[in-house]
Amino acid sequence: MFQKILIANRGEIAVRIIRACRELGIRTVAVYSEADKDALHAQLADEAVCIGPASSKDSYLNMERILSATIATKAEAIHPGFGFLSENSRFAQMCEKCHVAFIGPSPEIIQKMGNKSEARKTMMQAGVPVIPGTKEAVYTVEEGLSEAERIGFPVMIKASSGGGGKGMRVSEKKEDFTENFLMAQQESKNSFGDDTMYIERYVRNPRHIEVQILGDKFGNVVQLGERDCSIQRRHQKLIEESPCCAISEKIREKLGETARKAAKAVGYESAGTIEFLLDESGEFFFMEMNTRIQVEHPVTEFVSGVDLIKEQIQIAAGLPLSVSQEDISPNGHAIECRINAENPRKNFMPCPGTIEHLHIPGGNGVRVDTAVYAGYQIPPNYDSMIMKVIVHDKDRASAIAKLRSTLGEVIIEGIETNLDFQYDILQQKDFIEGKITTDFIPKHYSI
Amino acid sequence: MFQKILIANRGEIAVRIIRACRELGIRTVAVYSEADKDALHAQLADEAVCIGPASSKDSYLNMERILSATIATKAEAIHPGFGFLSENSRFAQMCEKCHVAFIGPSPEIIQKMGNKSEARKTMMQAGVPVIPGTKEAVYTVEEGLSEAERIGFPVMIKASSGGGGKGMRVSEKKEDFTENFLMAQQESKNSFGDDTMYIERYVRNPRHIEVQILGDKFGNVVQLGERDCSIQRRHQKLIEESPCCAISEKIREKLGETARKAAKAVGYESAGTIEFLLDESGEFFFMEMNTRIQVEHPVTEFVSGVDLIKEQIQIAAGLPLSVSQEDISPNGHAIECRINAENPRKNFMPCPGTIEHLHIPGGNGVRVDTAVYAGYQIPPNYDSMIMKVIVHDKDRASAIAKLRSTLGEVIIEGIETNLDFQYDILQQKDFIEGKITTDFIPKHYSI
Repeated sequence: MFQKILIANRGEIAVRIIRACRELGIRTVAVYSEADKDALHAQLADEAVCIGPASSKDSYLNMERILSATIATKAEAIHPGFGFLSENSRFAQMCEKCHVAFIGPSPEIIQKMGNKSEARKTMMQAGVPVIPGTKEAVYTVEEGLSEAERIGFPVMIKASSGGGGKGMRVSEKKEDFTENFLMAQQESKNSFGDDTMYIERYVRNPRHIEVQILGDKFGNVVQLGERDCSIQRRHQKLIEESPCCAISEKIREKLGETARKAAKAVGYESAGTIEFLLDESGEFFFMEMNTRIQVEHPVTEFVSGVDLIKEQIQIAAGLPLSVSQEDISPNGHAIECRINAENPRKNFMPCPGTIEHLHIPGGNGVRVDTAVYAGYQIPPNYDSMIMKVIVHDKDRASAIAKLRSTLGEVIIEGIETNLDFQYDILQQKDFIEGKITTDFIPKHYSI
Repeated sequence: MFQKILIANRGEIAVRIIRACRELGIRTVAVYSEADKDALHAQLADEAVCIGPASSKDSYLNMERILSATIATKAEAIHPGFGFLSENSRFAQMCEKCHVAFIGPSPEIIQKMGNKSEARKTMMQAGVPVIPGTKEAVYTVEEGLSEAERIGFPVMIKASSGGGGKGMRVSEKKEDFTENFLMAQQESKNSFGDDTMYIERYVRNPRHIEVQILGDKFGNVVQLGERDCSIQRRHQKLIEESPCCAISEKIREKLGETARKAAKAVGYESAGTIEFLLDESGEFFFMEMNTRIQVEHPVTEFVSGVDLIKEQIQIAAGLPLSVSQEDISPNGHAIECRINAENPRKNFMPCPGTIEHLHIPGGNGVRVDTAVYAGYQIPPNYDSMIMKVIVHDKDRASAIAKLRSTLGEVIIEGIETNLDFQYDILQQKDFIEGKITTDFIPKHYSI
């Protein structure tokens, strides 16, 4: 096992990783920017190295500085957390060259999954369903209709040069195809001077579902169930839960097994997530794979009882997974809610500042992951997420009640946050009834 | 289900109960003394009623005032927490007369179990082993020896009037009985002017083991596994864990089943605990039954996944248990550590005062139950326990590592606490190896 790990991140995920290391008896090195000199992660680690000014590119994204700090402190491994360098294959490669273990998959896998079209191809080969679509561009109604019939209705007609919704039309059935195709193509010609079109399956009212994967160096791969992360604002997740309340046991099993097989097929190592779009009928399609730990990993930890960060560290150290697929039996329901320093009424504008008063709730089935404290000044340079409130209870209704009660207890004074907005979502009838799709926020709020 | 519950308690247990009520959609009434006007429980509840001055007898122990507050606020039930009126059968009776549900067992059961000799008799009838001993007083060596042989060596020779260790002698075997009996009797005559003696089995290096019980109004009783609460100072528990690391699965099952049968035999209702002394050979003997929720209930919640406070409330409302014995399969290992505002170097003298700075850790498998906050002034009038740190991990070694890491992160400035003392216990070789008996503290510390 490693004696010392450097954490190439900040905020709550850095604190989360430091805690896992402490529990495993591993010494920790924090790196911090000048803006983070008072940050909790720098205080909690056994050693802390300042790696540059506030700007990420000069600190948390600066590979040379981070590797220098690693070598200078004699750390044997780097945990990249999420964001920053976590999915940078060049950084993973540089770690290899410096004989420092990168706690994550190999540079090759990171690169392969980071390239959308290559990832899609890889997944198709592994038997994972992807959104059916045209392989070649189409230019005429006849070509388009023939493709649409092959793909199956409803379809999305998309201009190759399209963007911002322009040159996009949904065709529900054969009868309305011609009209929609011609309108979309005309719009594209007018807007972009291009009549190149694509057709793909239209996923109606989709949910964002993802499956947590763990793989070790011995070819063992387990899946730890799915998360429903449909509640998003501008493609950023706000609320995540596990399990997904909208799928049958049969689909759940199929989803998990599909993800597991795919990870096995690519020889996946470390923690990873395969993201899917789920349609109303229960069909699901590959979107992308994240080759890192995710923000929302605690919901899976709550229901599976597996510590994902510890597993990542152990895997990187060459140990086998501590659980087999048979050991994993998800239990109860967990929900996470991201608290951001932002103003939902002002287009989610980040609102950094000083936290004057802070009350963090606790109790049975409540987990709060945060790196803020009373008196802490949130620097304006980084992500606005300051706290994750995660709850676990026997079923979804109890978990929602617990999350509401818990959020109602949180006090963060001195800055604007999305606490009230989150609380409001939890009271929406559609949320309570599990009717959550990726357009939930625009559908329910005019913000 | 109840619409409104009054919590006849203060501190972290009042907060714990308020949270459970909020999660169940039940409104809450806090009662508070004048010393507790800034207390968290009074702030968190939907309503708060001042019931008198700081002195417990005029506030938290004043039955009439608490019942008046209940009636005035139209609360339908009272949760007594632990301590104060929680095991007062007269109070439970008064509640009945006022048509207020007492969240706990019936007054008859409280009374029966509150009387040591009656409880012992009841348990014997229910087939629970009690410490073998003389039924009648003995006065001569001959009578004593005959009793000792019947009971089995080693035996404890006890003066009827004894106390503070005076008039007590352990006899290991027949050969040393006469000498020890005469010395104990002489000591008793000298100290108390009384030569009445008792003999009972001497339990060597005992552990304090207790079994958590839940029973409903339909005769269903479940046991939720045992807790080892051997780490005590002056008969007050400091560290509690579940499961006990020193018993085989066979003994664990026997212990649980014995406790469950006993609770069933007396028609036990609500949450309760049967406490045992466990000897080195794995034999266990009934000590007493606590007819209330206990301080250390969170360790059982962690390993069983059952919310004991919610169950208590549901039982009192006439609902059946939400779990059957078959549903319960303890998972992992949990340890609780009580943080007291006291000075271990000054004979555990309570040290109330103002908390100037506070950092409460969180994260995976960490639960902190507390009612203190930064700026809070701890009143000198009540119990010195201010925080419970509870952790859960896959096994005992991991749980100890997690608890150490977590305690190492706690910051409580402005008052003296036993944090360092607790941290030190967790580093003791004997503790780590599970060699924990009720004399652990005097054996390892000269305090």
